Amino acid sequence: MRAVIMHGPGDVRIEDVPVPEIILPTDAIIRVTAACICGSDLWPYRGIEKQKRPTRMGHEYIGVVEQVGADVRDIEVGDFVVGSFMASDGVCEICRAGYQSRCIHVVGMGSIGTQAEYARIPWADGTLVRVDGAPSDAQTRSLLAASDVLGTGWFAAVAAEAGPGKTVAVVGDGAVGLLGILAARELGAERIIAMSRHADRQALARSFGATDIVEERGDAGVARIKELTGGYGAHSTIEAVGTQESMEQAMRATRAGGHVGFVGVSHGVTIDGSELFYSGVHLHGGPAPVRRFLPDLIDLIMTDRIDPGTVFDLTLPFDEAAEGYRAMDERRATKVLLEF
Amino acid sequence: MRAVIMHGPGDVRIEDVPVPEIILPTDAIIRVTAACICGSDLWPYRGIEKQKRPTRMGHEYIGVVEQVGADVRDIEVGDFVVGSFMASDGVCEICRAGYQSRCIHVVGMGSIGTQAEYARIPWADGTLVRVDGAPSDAQTRSLLAASDVLGTGWFAAVAAEAGPGKTVAVVGDGAVGLLGILAARELGAERIIAMSRHADRQALARSFGATDIVEERGDAGVARIKELTGGYGAHSTIEAVGTQESMEQAMRATRAGGHVGFVGVSHGVTIDGSELFYSGVHLHGGPAPVRRFLPDLIDLIMTDRIDPGTVFDLTLPFDEAAEGYRAMDERRATKVLLEF
Repeated sequence: MRAVIMHGPGDVRIEDVPVPEIILPTDAIIRVTAACICGSDLWPYRGIEKQKRPTRMGHEYIGVVEQVGADVRDIEVGDFVVGSFMASDGVCEICRAGYQSRCIHVVGMGSIGTQAEYARIPWADGTLVRVDGAPSDAQTRSLLAASDVLGTGWFAAVAAEAGPGKTVAVVGDGAVGLLGILAARELGAERIIAMSRHADRQALARSFGATDIVEERGDAGVARIKELTGGYGAHSTIEAVGTQESMEQAMRATRAGGHVGFVGVSHGVTIDGSELFYSGVHLHGGPAPVRRFLPDLIDLIMTDRIDPGTVFDLTLPFDEAAEGYRAMDERRATKVLLEF
Repeated sequence: MRAVIMHGPGDVRIEDVPVPEIILPTDAIIRVTAACICGSDLWPYRGIEKQKRPTRMGHEYIGVVEQVGADVRDIEVGDFVVGSFMASDGVCEICRAGYQSRCIHVVGMGSIGTQAEYARIPWADGTLVRVDGAPSDAQTRSLLAASDVLGTGWFAAVAAEAGPGKTVAVVGDGAVGLLGILAARELGAERIIAMSRHADRQALARSFGATDIVEERGDAGVARIKELTGGYGAHSTIEAVGTQESMEQAMRATRAGGHVGFVGVSHGVTIDGSELFYSGVHLHGGPAPVRRFLPDLIDLIMTDRIDPGTVFDLTLPFDEAAEGYRAMDERRATKVLLEF
């Protein structure tokens, strides 16, 4: 089967690899109907995250179940499914508390690679959610978004405790930040301030529910957020980048007692304990437990209440994955969908 | 009047200073009936926190109101009062959200110094709480504890989301950690693990509600907590020290999705962003908004439901403050009460 392999920074190829097989009785094999490229895939693409050898890529997916292991109970061959980017057993105390992405038996789907025609899904019952009915094309794109970017943006908004009466600031105008805006709106936030200096992203941000745009960054960005919030700072801030600057910007833009939900994969970030101590903010984040939110997100999508699939602004045939990486790297695309 | 002045590491003296006066119409002047020495006073005493000049000390207090400014409405001359170690206006959005210790007009009582016969209390209406009735000696000691160590331990337990069904780990066996145990018990925690290697502190910990004692520290301490919690770690961890080791110990002892409430004043702590990201814990803490809890704590004390005053294991006349500092520094005392 065809799969995306990254050979090194900027070097993405489609190659032929063996079709995966059931390894454990809790596995399923799915035929991937669409995959996509994640902002986090750009870290190795840009050489910031080092890879020692050619690596399979991708962790977002929707597809049709082709085969299930002997212990799989809830998922059947032929089901159309969405799964999280982290496979989880669904039964440990961590999963039951809603932190499936930190399941004690977690398997990152990135280590398997879903930018491929087929994928093995560990812990199929704990990981996959069946979609009933026949999704439209728009719904299908939205379901793919649910697999990571929507689920991650949603978690960020929940971790930031976005809700009625709250002012939410969003640091990062990539797909996750944009869908964090959508999530904050759905959770009832009163005011949503998107930090973005790109006209196209600003337009998407407004379409997802942003009420204000702040173009300044760093200290100037923080000052502008304070200015917009009576000097207090935001109640809730979503950090969807993962750099030192973005994390500091998020913490400093948040009022004491407020909440920072951080989901940008942390790259070289260190948090000064004393600054955190005196900030009085709540910090919570990490790899999003997308599986917690999937049933609700699927319902919102299948009833046309939300349309996160519009975050995909470039759709390419799977064989043109390399162009998809280039487009995202050069910021010509926010989020690339790869279809078979 | 007499006041404690720290001239340098290990050099604490009682000196004569002017009686404070009303400066702003929102001030009150109280006659301090008892003060105490805080674990945080030991940082400059040990030379870890540098001081440039002789410094007034103390931020915990109970007392009788002697004088009020023209704008003070709720507090009257003659009231017996408890206040927080942070003076707060009580009306800004931060105060109203329960984060009085980060009030936009906050004044740290440490900058005023309550180890003295009289103290000026800024924002008297927002800071002080009147105690009705005639407290017994034991209740009086407990009310003094409420001013900081009890309120801080309570905030730590709330920030750690201690409650029914939860296992709470407590890092730090000073007065704050010990009263964090009491708070966790009052909040309904199922199991409370005190990390302590001192027999006297262990006994106090058990008297406040600890169900288990862990003597190991660092990685071994974390391993022991995991062992006691089915491999998962604590749901809630109180960090009441403020060092790199204690903060790491607290984060690592907590399960994904769990909560770390940190109240040890941060000294040279840096948090690795990547470790925090993958830990999946909630981090919240800082200077405790004691004022939020004071009315309830006073009620619990005046109805003899809790007896946090037992944390004072050394009572000295005010003039022997220097011996009090020595006793705490040498860990001969957990918490010293200074009485007039």
